[in-house]
Amino acid sequence: MTSGVVDVRAIDLPAVQRQVDAVLEKFLAEKARAGAGRGHPPEVVQTVRDFLTAGGKRIRALLCVVGWHAAGGHGDAAAAVRVAASLELFVAFALIHDDIMDDSVTRRGRPAVHRVMRARLGAGERAERLGAGGALLVGNLALMWAQELLHTAPIESGRQRLVHRLYDAMLEEVMYGQYLDVMGTGRSDDVEAALRIIRYKTATATVERPLQLGAAVAGADEATMEVFTRLGLPLGEAFQLRDDLLDVFGGPDGACAPGLSDLREGKRTVLLALGMQNADQVQRERLGRLVGRADLQEREAAEIRGILLATDARGETERMITARYDHVSRVLDGAGFPASADRALRGLAVKATRYTS
Amino acid sequence: MTSGVVDVRAIDLPAVQRQVDAVLEKFLAEKARAGAGRGHPPEVVQTVRDFLTAGGKRIRALLCVVGWHAAGGHGDAAAAVRVAASLELFVAFALIHDDIMDDSVTRRGRPAVHRVMRARLGAGERAERLGAGGALLVGNLALMWAQELLHTAPIESGRQRLVHRLYDAMLEEVMYGQYLDVMGTGRSDDVEAALRIIRYKTATATVERPLQLGAAVAGADEATMEVFTRLGLPLGEAFQLRDDLLDVFGGPDGACAPGLSDLREGKRTVLLALGMQNADQVQRERLGRLVGRADLQEREAAEIRGILLATDARGETERMITARYDHVSRVLDGAGFPASADRALRGLAVKATRYTS
Repeated sequence: MTSGVVDVRAIDLPAVQRQVDAVLEKFLAEKARAGAGRGHPPEVVQTVRDFLTAGGKRIRALLCVVGWHAAGGHGDAAAAVRVAASLELFVAFALIHDDIMDDSVTRRGRPAVHRVMRARLGAGERAERLGAGGALLVGNLALMWAQELLHTAPIESGRQRLVHRLYDAMLEEVMYGQYLDVMGTGRSDDVEAALRIIRYKTATATVERPLQLGAAVAGADEATMEVFTRLGLPLGEAFQLRDDLLDVFGGPDGACAPGLSDLREGKRTVLLALGMQNADQVQRERLGRLVGRADLQEREAAEIRGILLATDARGETERMITARYDHVSRVLDGAGFPASADRALRGLAVKATRYTS
Repeated sequence: MTSGVVDVRAIDLPAVQRQVDAVLEKFLAEKARAGAGRGHPPEVVQTVRDFLTAGGKRIRALLCVVGWHAAGGHGDAAAAVRVAASLELFVAFALIHDDIMDDSVTRRGRPAVHRVMRARLGAGERAERLGAGGALLVGNLALMWAQELLHTAPIESGRQRLVHRLYDAMLEEVMYGQYLDVMGTGRSDDVEAALRIIRYKTATATVERPLQLGAAVAGADEATMEVFTRLGLPLGEAFQLRDDLLDVFGGPDGACAPGLSDLREGKRTVLLALGMQNADQVQRERLGRLVGRADLQEREAAEIRGILLATDARGETERMITARYDHVSRVLDGAGFPASADRALRGLAVKATRYTS
């Protein structure tokens, strides 16, 4: 851990995000150029590029670079930024595959990739099957390119093994989380099961591993890694719990409209599990009937929201977020990170758990 | 290139295969153990293990270790063997995903992975969708474990970058090949298009890259790498052309029965493209009507075989294999590889292009 150093700089997070995006843009432009020379279909790179530019908070990328700073990284951040860019391609892969499995209609406000591919092929069962196949392969290429960015990051050679080990662990965790989610047959009122899915699918991959990866690039000591482990789970859970609330209720400031996607999909969120758990007979019957209906209308969504409020499922979720944020705050109090990294971490935590989507 | 050394040893290929299988077995046993400790569903590792033990010629793994020998590798082959094992997990990934996209019924004589997953879930549309999703994730984990084997191979640190570069290039080539195959709208008599699919999807990944990966682990020079490039394409094509013949006509010695899978799937092979190209009006109409029918019967397959013989499509494919084998032989004549590696390469080439599946 770095301490005793007076650190008055701030980490310029928007600048970090621009650096990460520049790495991605340059890498994909090179892929497009090389692909054109080999006669590869240009829509593959273009689809990945569209996916990345459509949005995304780059939260993993930012955490990776902040982790590098927290572990005492200084000078040229190129290696950490490249690993951060790799994480964004990994996320693209995971979401593209997720959308195939859920047959999601949209992602980041645009048609999901398998829907784009399907539309390219016309209509009918064949287009549907081939569209999913094309998206599967585009997703695979995003993952492979993520690995290529990792492999070509200028990481000090003595630190590569640990970086690879953390990266491999992250991929495995996310896949097992998706597997539990897809194949799970858990009860809809099982809060623990919903939390377990968050843990595997989201929490470690969103916070702990990105922070540790950045730290590993900086040659972090064990103590720093351990702080990130203690901080990663609660912060990752808080992110996801906030996301779940935003999806159903929208943002507190009206910046983000409430939606229907989690409710239509019947996503096994903690919010909905709490609703089922706390519901009386009548409410439980209504939730069971409405949640997961692909043709759910806004009027019915409003009824679900009413039940989630009446059963205090929303309030309980908010309190879970607050408890996790407080826990993170206490971990940071004792971490002794450089002030710039400490500030950046607290800022990201507040931003992602309190106010925005 | 290594030359001037009198080399009287032989490479014990069955022993190499046992070493590769032992690495895979140990790695997956460790995954099962660690997974059990974390509450992961045990069927994931078991499914990958079943897939690997169901068969496969381990041709890429053998070529990888032979490439290591050819490039002068000596002493402990552990790094090359681990990279070779990684290739087999990569193949598992690619085939599992391929079978999802083609909705294949069997693979290596057993139900395809998505069919196994589907059966676990009962019947109906939901089981079908989730079965495909589960198989997708099992495939992804196989790929991630392939990467983990690569990352943990004891490769000399100065050689890691080249190994990673070759590996990343291989993955990308295979994905683009699958993409061309899945999304392709080529004409069924387009021999060049069928060869291009072989090149991307199979040829480089089956021969050139495995040989180069082994060679890179041994610290090969440029000249050796170039020999493998010159040899990889014709040998890889010959392998695939033989596979296509075996699938339709069975083995010449009756060891391998003719099947229906490529014909039912309407796989765009060179064999079938030649048949269409050489066919007269009536034959072409019959091929167009029969090939690709999911319910094709043996009597109709026999009719297709008759046309492929009458149009000399079978003979032409055989001559293409022979021309490629001769080319490989001439490249080897001038390569100056150690005698043991030379013998092993010629043996694998004969075995895979002439006699067996």
